[in-house]
Amino acid sequence: MLKRKIVILKLYALTILGKNSKKADLLRKSGLFAEYGRGGYWHPAWIPSYPELIHIGNNVSVAADVRLYEHDLVRRMWICDPGYKGSEVPYYTGEIYVGDNSIIGARSIILYNVSIGKNALVAAGSVVTKNVPDYAIVGGNPAKVIGDTRKLYNKRISNK
Amino acid sequence: MLKRKIVILKLYALTILGKNSKKADLLRKSGLFAEYGRGGYWHPAWIPSYPELIHIGNNVSVAADVRLYEHDLVRRMWICDPGYKGSEVPYYTGEIYVGDNSIIGARSIILYNVSIGKNALVAAGSVVTKNVPDYAIVGGNPAKVIGDTRKLYNKRISNK
Amino acid sequence: MLKRKIVILKLYALTILGKNSKKADLLRKSGLFAEYGRGGYWHPAWIPSYPELIHIGNNVSVAADVRLYEHDLVRRMWICDPGYKGSEVPYYTGEIYVGDNSIIGARSIILYNVSIGKNALVAAGSVVTKNVPDYAIVGGNPAKVIGDTRKLYNKRISNK
Repeated sequence: MLKRKIVILKLYALTILGKNSKKADLLRKSGLFAEYGRGGYWHPAWIPSYPELIHIGNNVSVAADVRLYEHDLVRRMWICDPGYKGSEVPYYTGEIYVGDNSIIGARSIILYNVSIGKNALVAAGSVVTKNVPDYAIVGGNPAKVIGDTRKLYNKRISNK
Repeated sequence: MLKRKIVILKLYALTILGKNSKKADLLRKSGLFAEYGRGGYWHPAWIPSYPELIHIGNNVSVAADVRLYEHDLVRRMWICDPGYKGSEVPYYTGEIYVGDNSIIGARSIILYNVSIGKNALVAAGSVVTKNVPDYAIVGGNPAKVIGDTRKLYNKRISNK
Repeated sequence: MLKRKIVILKLYALTILGKNSKKADLLRKSGLFAEYGRGGYWHPAWIPSYPELIHIGNNVSVAADVRLYEHDLVRRMWICDPGYKGSEVPYYTGEIYVGDNSIIGARSIILYNVSIGKNALVAAGSVVTKNVPDYAIVGGNPAKVIGDTRKLYNKRISNK
């Protein structure tokens, strides 16, 4: 889709100009996403293939090299294999939700059919395959709950 | 090697032109790989340093940002360290095999000395350090068996 | 910072010219890092946002696509959320140390407040969240100790 390609070119331009803070606004105004809330941050010079399946809440921060995978290629396995009716297998996609105030850490992957709650934190390098509760900190591959952002807030505000 | 660099430049060009579906054909015809089967899909604008160690079957799909690491840098550890005879340690490489109809999910890493069977599925973001049986679904880091593509087929064909 | 941007442009130029072996020297001479030892190897066309928090020993090898994350974005969670005094939460950073002769494998992530010992090996694709002892081989996400580089040396020198 042409509109999507233009948005990606603009993301590249903002990256080269060092204007990462303008990217979330660009995505919100593009109208390509199912939902894209106010006041967030988007670092990657990349958007999903089907942004119409992605719901981003308010004040969501998406760090460098994050990927939201809302589709897969698995159907190709069966297309050329005579033992299967591959062409009858539907192309697979699923929606992704990211709740208000959540942080998606650098190099993380969020898979289809995942809902990330509000005020959640996905640690850098995570692969998120299941829903993430509100306030949870998740990390690892596959990602597991490893903490609570309310406790992290208390720790950080007292260390200031 | 000059031929390898030209192939990489062509992969970049196909990426910019949005012609990802032409990449597998380019790699097969390049003759650089130990083996590169018919009818597959290759998304990355990247090829391994030593494609002559990589065996790709027929109808193999390789998603975005996949890496096949057929060598490592470990020998460097001992070259400058006087406690070791580093210069006598051989440069380390190993072969990688990917069987017919298999899918290598986005951002996965396949390490040297790994054979991936036929009709296998490597989930997005996996790091594959051991052999993958035919029909296995593997995921995680390190990747473990988490399912069977024959069951996945039944699930997807019935959901159509 | 302008000096940092110039170094990144030079890293891109060396990448395009295929002169990866010149990158470590460029970073050492840049003076941007807290410490950058002699005789190493640096492959990524990337440096951390705050290299002044990164300590690299002598003869350290950093493979393709490695990231050293010395800061996070978490503070943003609380800035726009009225339930929190987000603007009082300090911006979070932490130092990273990599000891002499260590190898950081391709696509690995090293997080803040991590010290990697001497002659350690971080396997490809690892996410390192805790300190790594001297001579340890770590792998996985989160990374765990999976071997010893002294044993690996004996194995590789005898296989030559």
